Amino acid sequence: MMSNVYDAAYDMEKAIRNSSEFTDLKNLYDQVNADPGAKGMFDNFRQLQMTLQQKQMTGQEIAPDEMEQAQKTVALVQQHETIAKLMEAEQRLSMVIADLNRIIMKPLEDLYGAPEQ
Amino acid sequence: MMSNVYDAAYDMEKAIRNSSEFTDLKNLYDQVNADPGAKGMFDNFRQLQMTLQQKQMTGQEIAPDEMEQAQKTVALVQQHETIAKLMEAEQRLSMVIADLNRIIMKPLEDLYGAPEQ
Ligand SMILES: [Ca+2]
Ligand SMILES: [Ca+2]
Repeated sequence: MMSNVYDAAYDMEKAIRNSSEFTDLKNLYDQVNADPGAKGMFDNFRQLQMTLQQKQMTGQEIAPDEMEQAQKTVALVQQHETIAKLMEAEQRLSMVIADLNRIIMKPLEDLYGAPEQ
Repeated sequence: MMSNVYDAAYDMEKAIRNSSEFTDLKNLYDQVNADPGAKGMFDNFRQLQMTLQQKQMTGQEIAPDEMEQAQKTVALVQQHETIAKLMEAEQRLSMVIADLNRIIMKPLEDLYGAPEQ
């Protein structure tokens, strides 16, 4: 029985790797990384995003000028065509992965009952 | 391509549902729920666990007497044979699911690089 679960996981890993959602993302990510200007802009944005998420998760306050800085950075990266496309591709893959997680977690949800909406 | 990912997810859902880890957990959960005394004890423990987790996640302090209460409740439920087995079964399934998540997230990890250990 055990091996079936792991076999299914490896099949799914392969399916994700071959999906258009993943290959699109990979191509855009490679494009951004091949362009030092784009890469710098994107790394800067990613860093800021992680800092803000960490603050949110640990209940720290986000200062108004930090928020303003974040909004400016988002506006800037969204004007870069390849980065904007990369962010859309990330969004699409995230949605697929959220779907997959819902499907896989269905047995546990059936057992314990769905969480309140 | 898309359908392959979802097909793989449904196969995996079935594999989880048929795994001994899941069926063991389900049998123990049904046993606990069929026994009002055990069910009450387990629900009480689960409720307390969720309250403490929520506090931890939102950065709220856990009072010393709340911690003491939690430790007493854990000690109590662990003395109940079926509940103790249920908790072990939950632990085993959690470990399998963590493995599965690691396998499935491998493509993204390869793309973005592994998080720092
Ligand atoms: Ca980078
Ligand atoms: Ca219950």
